[in-house]
Amino acid sequence: MILYGWHTVVAALNNPERQIRKLFLTENAARRLADENIDTRVPPEIVRPNLIDQRLGPDAVHQGFLAEADPLPSPDIDTLAQEGIVLVLDQITDPHNVGAIMRSAAAFAVKAIVTTARHSPEATGVLAKSASGALELVPLVTVQNLARALNELNDLGFMTVGLDSEGTEDLGAVPLQQPLALVLGAEGKGLRQLTRDTCSVVARLDMPGEIKSLNVSNAAVLALYIGASRLGLMK
Amino acid sequence: MILYGWHTVVAALNNPERQIRKLFLTENAARRLADENIDTRVPPEIVRPNLIDQRLGPDAVHQGFLAEADPLPSPDIDTLAQEGIVLVLDQITDPHNVGAIMRSAAAFAVKAIVTTARHSPEATGVLAKSASGALELVPLVTVQNLARALNELNDLGFMTVGLDSEGTEDLGAVPLQQPLALVLGAEGKGLRQLTRDTCSVVARLDMPGEIKSLNVSNAAVLALYIGASRLGLMK
Repeated sequence: MILYGWHTVVAALNNPERQIRKLFLTENAARRLADENIDTRVPPEIVRPNLIDQRLGPDAVHQGFLAEADPLPSPDIDTLAQEGIVLVLDQITDPHNVGAIMRSAAAFAVKAIVTTARHSPEATGVLAKSASGALELVPLVTVQNLARALNELNDLGFMTVGLDSEGTEDLGAVPLQQPLALVLGAEGKGLRQLTRDTCSVVARLDMPGEIKSLNVSNAAVLALYIGASRLGLMK
Repeated sequence: MILYGWHTVVAALNNPERQIRKLFLTENAARRLADENIDTRVPPEIVRPNLIDQRLGPDAVHQGFLAEADPLPSPDIDTLAQEGIVLVLDQITDPHNVGAIMRSAAAFAVKAIVTTARHSPEATGVLAKSASGALELVPLVTVQNLARALNELNDLGFMTVGLDSEGTEDLGAVPLQQPLALVLGAEGKGLRQLTRDTCSVVARLDMPGEIKSLNVSNAAVLALYIGASRLGLMK
């Protein structure tokens, strides 16, 4: 997979679990790593910025950093700690949204993200950039079948709460318990019926304005804040 | 400006303040409007989907709807109601982020968004799509000089709270008052020094995880939730 941008590449270099294959740096980027005493792990290839531009396309803000790395291993659901919060993503594919969700997950000390989505190498680069280093901090559990994964979480004692604008209760009014799995659906489509049926509770986020649904990463961070606050996990 | 996508175009057609210049619909899109009894306001041109693709590029999810419209008028700061919450955006330019923020603003019944940013026609289309109709609901106040606008808000009695990871207090601990202006800076750069100096308070969002900063639209929705909850504006 491809990682680019200062935060993303530095987080990968600082993660001993992350296998780095190749590292491409501009002269400035190499100097910046040296100034901050960051170990490059592999001998970097010093390149001109336009070589990285060519590789990533003109819109990628790479800041002179590009790494080729192996994906991190995906843990099994039954190895998850039975405390705190995990996020479950039901067919959320937009890499900017998934990246922003991973970043918020790291900010709220989420234990893992469970997802069925597999991304192309290009999408993984965008996801990693949007995640701003969070890919190194939050284990990504990739599963074949989301309903089966939710059943496993239920069996392990997780409270599984689906978020949906058609939910029966406001999330703030649900008596939440640890371990908690917050389940988010794709924008537009929401949770699939089988996902919904497998959750212990389907809750909505009540808001006072005329629009009743948020961008999915915005819904995720709000659910995390409400969950972490109610469960006493904000310290 | 260009508007595309079902939610965005329907919201524009339903807004009597919005001047529609031209409307391009696929056959399916025209039927969908007819089925829902939505007035097209101008005679639509029925086109093939690939004509809209060509205009917007291959990544735009237009669903067969494209409108050319005039921007809505920008109100003056001194006409803002002195109650509730306004959002102030300091050089936030990414149209996906600004769109998501507008959508959250509409969900939290924000009175207006104050911004210096001017977007290209293409960026405005993306922004409007991400805003999912919110452009018709939340007045956009475009100003030349943000510090001057903040001083005006201060003079009008607004409490101006800047959000910054280096803030002196946690937003949840600040005794918030109406009317409230929440001020957000661009990702990476944060609030400019002059913006920071002009705010009544600079607050941070305390979170328990290893990453201490969020995607800007995620930070915005969290600040809105905390603000609206503390001010009793959630109903």
